[in-house]
Amino acid sequence: MDYTIRTAKKSDMPQVLKLIQELAVFEKEEQEVEVTVADLENDGFGAEKKFHCFVADSEVGIIGLALLYPRYSTWKGPVIHLEDLIVNASYRGSGLGTALLDEVVKYGHSLGVKRISWEVLDWNEAAIKFYESKGARVMRDWDVVQLNEAAMKNYLENL
Amino acid sequence: MDYTIRTAKKSDMPQVLKLIQELAVFEKEEQEVEVTVADLENDGFGAEKKFHCFVADSEVGIIGLALLYPRYSTWKGPVIHLEDLIVNASYRGSGLGTALLDEVVKYGHSLGVKRISWEVLDWNEAAIKFYESKGARVMRDWDVVQLNEAAMKNYLENL
Repeated sequence: MDYTIRTAKKSDMPQVLKLIQELAVFEKEEQEVEVTVADLENDGFGAEKKFHCFVADSEVGIIGLALLYPRYSTWKGPVIHLEDLIVNASYRGSGLGTALLDEVVKYGHSLGVKRISWEVLDWNEAAIKFYESKGARVMRDWDVVQLNEAAMKNYLENL
Repeated sequence: MDYTIRTAKKSDMPQVLKLIQELAVFEKEEQEVEVTVADLENDGFGAEKKFHCFVADSEVGIIGLALLYPRYSTWKGPVIHLEDLIVNASYRGSGLGTALLDEVVKYGHSLGVKRISWEVLDWNEAAIKFYESKGARVMRDWDVVQLNEAAMKNYLENL
């Protein structure tokens, strides 16, 4: 399968959302996807751009993506966070994940950042093996903490 | 100890960096802090503001801080990330951490975000207990992954 990695266009967002939903199914969290195509269009291509997205475009459409945005490390300064690296299930193991990650690292380097971070499920051994083969460090002693919408509401009601 | 929680000013950055360094010592990573006062001044108060910072100001100076910035969830849309919540060692257990987190949650609510996230070391049981008491979910199955400066360099050299 031939494909080109390029920056996403607004008109790619319906296909981008499909890939996001596909990953959520894999992570057993499909009910958690609240974002709509209109949200992605506004948030990625509006006056205040909230993310940057690369897509792998092929003759059957978008078969992979990398979505990222800046973060700020109080140790390293401006850094990049890779929110999603998604390869359509039919194309796993084809080198597409590597091709997308290559673009992300080149992009981070072009911005002069000192770190690219992301998150991984600790049972996703295939992903962990892939990331470690690329030189990334999986920090198993650092956990993600979330205060979700219901917890925020409850928090504020108890102030 | 009386204190006021307020948005940080540029002139607070030397004290903010001291607290950042203090936390890095606690986390046994003090050599990792590369950010300077000038970086914090430029990155927090320049044309492109990269973070928002609350400080706890007392008669002995800044004794705590919360530093945050926007992120983007492909499930929830715009969210807030709390990069650092730091209370000077002499004031732990005084309610200052709660007072700072209160401001963070109110700030996130004012922006209309559906989630506030942060990261915690899995051996920092005092912090985990505190966060869970506030309704946050410590996701022990999600690990942080980092491609650092040396790994980025190595990655690009091997492309």
